[in-house]
Amino acid sequence: MIQLTILGCHSATPRVNAHPTSQYLEINNNHFLVDCGEGTQRQMRKYKVGFSKINHIFISHLHGDHFYGLVGLLSTYGILSREKEMHIFGPKGIKKATLQMLKISESHAKFNMVFHELSSKESELIYEDDKVTVQTIPLTHRVYTNGYLFTEKPKPRKLNMLNISGYAEIDRADYLNIKAGRDVTLSSGEVIPNTLLTIDPTKPLSYAFCSDTSYKPNIIPIIKNVDLLYHEATFLNDRQDLAKKTKHSTAIEAAKIAKEANVGQLIIGHYSGRYPDTSLFKKEAETVFKNVSLAKPGAVFKIN
Amino acid sequence: MIQLTILGCHSATPRVNAHPTSQYLEINNNHFLVDCGEGTQRQMRKYKVGFSKINHIFISHLHGDHFYGLVGLLSTYGILSREKEMHIFGPKGIKKATLQMLKISESHAKFNMVFHELSSKESELIYEDDKVTVQTIPLTHRVYTNGYLFTEKPKPRKLNMLNISGYAEIDRADYLNIKAGRDVTLSSGEVIPNTLLTIDPTKPLSYAFCSDTSYKPNIIPIIKNVDLLYHEATFLNDRQDLAKKTKHSTAIEAAKIAKEANVGQLIIGHYSGRYPDTSLFKKEAETVFKNVSLAKPGAVFKIN
Repeated sequence: MIQLTILGCHSATPRVNAHPTSQYLEINNNHFLVDCGEGTQRQMRKYKVGFSKINHIFISHLHGDHFYGLVGLLSTYGILSREKEMHIFGPKGIKKATLQMLKISESHAKFNMVFHELSSKESELIYEDDKVTVQTIPLTHRVYTNGYLFTEKPKPRKLNMLNISGYAEIDRADYLNIKAGRDVTLSSGEVIPNTLLTIDPTKPLSYAFCSDTSYKPNIIPIIKNVDLLYHEATFLNDRQDLAKKTKHSTAIEAAKIAKEANVGQLIIGHYSGRYPDTSLFKKEAETVFKNVSLAKPGAVFKIN
Repeated sequence: MIQLTILGCHSATPRVNAHPTSQYLEINNNHFLVDCGEGTQRQMRKYKVGFSKINHIFISHLHGDHFYGLVGLLSTYGILSREKEMHIFGPKGIKKATLQMLKISESHAKFNMVFHELSSKESELIYEDDKVTVQTIPLTHRVYTNGYLFTEKPKPRKLNMLNISGYAEIDRADYLNIKAGRDVTLSSGEVIPNTLLTIDPTKPLSYAFCSDTSYKPNIIPIIKNVDLLYHEATFLNDRQDLAKKTKHSTAIEAAKIAKEANVGQLIIGHYSGRYPDTSLFKKEAETVFKNVSLAKPGAVFKIN
């Protein structure tokens, strides 16, 4: 299961109805925060996300609208007497600046903050547990930037109890092996193939977060066939010149990436404040790719 | 004229309806920001304060709820191509941490940021122009903390045109001297006293900001007779033990300070989140001092 809650999806400066980038991602029982612009913790409260369930924060790049809320959030966890470790993934420099700010504000957080500073220009596996993997998606922006690919690990095969019940010899002690994909050899020597005893598990789900970036087709192999893609669309096509100059994308470019990568659903966001009507982003993207949604604070996207 | 706009007045962590401390102060044509908790710039937009008119920011102390919004605000000024200098007054350490954070976020602000790092335990004059003075009010908190006293400079005396018109010899060329308080000597040798030719100017107004602090009666001589006092009241009297322990004040203690200092009006704020009903603060303070108002975001206090 993937459930994505948008906390903020506007570009640049915080405004009354424009909250900088942040997302709360639940994937296979993991709870991640992706980016943390100023005001994120208030948005987390407003949309009732699992505040205390987050143990990993992924920062795409060190522009303020993506991480100025991090210090305040970590400080708040300290005030709330958090004890569990917090892992923070982000570009080089984030550790020193964050710890310095926490130090001068005498934030006596008792929990361990583990910073994973990234600098590779290649896609790399940066986190793994028994349920998910997280891989970087190197993006092209004015500063070192990674997107993140979150993928469920393959689930065990499901038992086909109808077929299993046809074999008196097969009992519960065998189930674990069968789910792991093994054939069963009966006492007679007959081998019962696993495919008779199990059903395919649900396909592992995946979510790719791509912000901020200029149009970069060579991320397509990394995000091929993801179920859900968030891709920045700071500008409309009318300002493609500005998108190129500032190393951002247009709605059409985001849609092209989604189409070429054959994603399930595209969410666009990071709207420039010059466009009061964000519906134009959807209209433009839909000319290239059909299944487009607009990110907005509080929006929840769920895939089972 | 003094006009104070409360941008945030809750203590500790930002919550959906609880914004950390910040105030926008207009005093005799100066525009100051006092404290800058996370989310302040959004509150500035929401309450339409003179964003670009601010040239001086005063930070009381380095607890996050009083200054975590500063980096984001300075970054925003950079994005908006600000050119005027910005003066930031606050405790030692604020300059290094702020500049470091701005540096790693590649905030290319073109304007000069002038940090005035304070460390004196005595009250000192820290800013002066031809219209106002700003003086520190040393407070007692868990970290080095100053309140700030903002005072209009005495205005010129006002011309009493009715009386002046009775002297044919007195003409416009004399007005500046008369306003400056000088007597006029006629050609006959008669000295016309200034008090006949002028009216007392309006009394210079003053505003004292006192947060965060434990109960500290020895600030009274500094804030004596101020027209407007903002004093923190984090707790009610029921938790005076906790106020003492955390070096905060109760509503009653804030009111005692106001009464002893003979202030014109008391505003209380910095409410702890443990009290959902902030009206209790007013009720408690009013048992000691009559003219009490509750700070709340968007509230405007004006004194002519």
